[in-house]
Amino acid sequence: MELQKEFIEKILNGDKRAVSRAITLIENNPADKSKLLKHLHAHTGNAYRIGITGPPGAGKSTLTDCLIKHLTEAGYKTGVIAVDPTSPFTGGALLGDRVRMSESGLLKDVFIRSMATRGSLGGLSKNVIDACNVLDAAGKDFILIETVGVGQSELDIAQTADTTVVVLVPESGDSIQAMKAGLMEIADIFALNKSDRAGADEIASGIKNMLHLKAATEHHWNIDVIKTIAARGTGVKELFTEILKHKSHLLKTGLFDRKRKDHLMREITETVNANLQKNFWDDNKIKLLNKSIESIYKKTTDPYTFSEELIKSISSLS
Amino acid sequence: MELQKEFIEKILNGDKRAVSRAITLIENNPADKSKLLKHLHAHTGNAYRIGITGPPGAGKSTLTDCLIKHLTEAGYKTGVIAVDPTSPFTGGALLGDRVRMSESGLLKDVFIRSMATRGSLGGLSKNVIDACNVLDAAGKDFILIETVGVGQSELDIAQTADTTVVVLVPESGDSIQAMKAGLMEIADIFALNKSDRAGADEIASGIKNMLHLKAATEHHWNIDVIKTIAARGTGVKELFTEILKHKSHLLKTGLFDRKRKDHLMREITETVNANLQKNFWDDNKIKLLNKSIESIYKKTTDPYTFSEELIKSISSLS
Repeated sequence: MELQKEFIEKILNGDKRAVSRAITLIENNPADKSKLLKHLHAHTGNAYRIGITGPPGAGKSTLTDCLIKHLTEAGYKTGVIAVDPTSPFTGGALLGDRVRMSESGLLKDVFIRSMATRGSLGGLSKNVIDACNVLDAAGKDFILIETVGVGQSELDIAQTADTTVVVLVPESGDSIQAMKAGLMEIADIFALNKSDRAGADEIASGIKNMLHLKAATEHHWNIDVIKTIAARGTGVKELFTEILKHKSHLLKTGLFDRKRKDHLMREITETVNANLQKNFWDDNKIKLLNKSIESIYKKTTDPYTFSEELIKSISSLS
Repeated sequence: MELQKEFIEKILNGDKRAVSRAITLIENNPADKSKLLKHLHAHTGNAYRIGITGPPGAGKSTLTDCLIKHLTEAGYKTGVIAVDPTSPFTGGALLGDRVRMSESGLLKDVFIRSMATRGSLGGLSKNVIDACNVLDAAGKDFILIETVGVGQSELDIAQTADTTVVVLVPESGDSIQAMKAGLMEIADIFALNKSDRAGADEIASGIKNMLHLKAATEHHWNIDVIKTIAARGTGVKELFTEILKHKSHLLKTGLFDRKRKDHLMREITETVNANLQKNFWDDNKIKLLNKSIESIYKKTTDPYTFSEELIKSISSLS
């Protein structure tokens, strides 16, 4: 595919259909995606990225929806990537929150896209970053990245943001589970959602106490707990104010540039690694692996010797 | 390190200290690990692997502990790999279940090892499989692999087992969350734990109804829901009987060999990919990346062009 100049221009102008096509291309067409992203790179770097994560049922989607509305009312253009553990088996039918959120997607300057975790093994994190880059080039001021924060890859995604908001609810054991799942480390801000429920204050001070255990680092940022009731829109303004406070902190301390350069390095490493693999696994090698699997399974040879020989055979051929 | 013959022999004899050292080597010493695993491969393939996964708080560790006791009483040698979202920040202090479980680790023929998800980005799944291979070579009859089943990588690990048990509890929304998280697809057996709680029967029949939606495949296995109360040891025998029934099904239909060959192919692919990356990213290339990141960040060049040129420069040099 020759990437039409027109297509690129539409993306840069924030045309919803073009942005949507671009993300589909990222998901399904690895060959063309780097061509596209080459053109867009010079136009990225302006959008501020907010990760929203937390255990299932914490109300992340509802809170994201509140933030979208708040940002829109304040005149900001907003993009949303919702990383969605939708399965091919259950379909999207269970995701009532998403349906609600997609109503916000009808607003002129809001773009919402779900990206599925299934079927994109390993590559999801890279695809999400690439999709954010598209939204960035498309002129969004803020990009919200929503993920279920329990698995390692989901946490990785949340961490590609400039500010990571961890959403919890005042339910017994919830904060402990969150710590087990590694959410404590990645939070820049806690949103204690459904904070009208019993025990909210105890949980909030519990989290704050826990945070005191965290070693103070250079350019220390004081992680705060913001109480929200997303279903009523309560606390959303305060949450956004805290996000902007964190942004100032990052800019003032130089952490902003450092974080973004780190992410860029990771992006490059992943791109290179993906290409190395793609170049290596040609039809011949896949055939050879298929042919050899029987003797490896029967233990005539072992997988490590086979792997080494496969790599060696290539270097000697080139 | 020259791998002493004695070390290998001790592993094959099931010596706990040697097995423990071998797994540490897998985690920390990629260079020597393939040497070790080459020696062990011929002795693997005998242990039956059971994945135990489910949302946080479902009682997976307690159920795993019950299974260890049941297997030990039945005269089986058991190995356990607990994939643990322990963080460097919170440490292991929160993991009370693990403490309880490790008492079982004192039994003569039981070996229990926690492997952390943090700090082993990308490589965790491979490390867990390699550790299982060590336990397999060490003469274990059964290997239990326990993971928190919410993230993609954790689900991947659970799926490397021969039989995957998904543990749920009768709590509102729990089964729906499980489906969102993709647990429905990977379950060979459901354990409905804490099944003395209200609503257990409703949830059990809810899951069964849901399973009817699943398309029948060739060699169809009828997924069942086993009610357990791990804290009292109730239902553990029935769960183990169901696991053995699933094992027979796999053997009878030829799925057993097919699954294991598929896993072996994935193992080889991952080993090759890891080596490709290791060979590629030498000091020079890491230096070049570090040097170039400034101009990529300033958009003088873009990450995709840079990646391509980095790969090209290598192929033309070789």
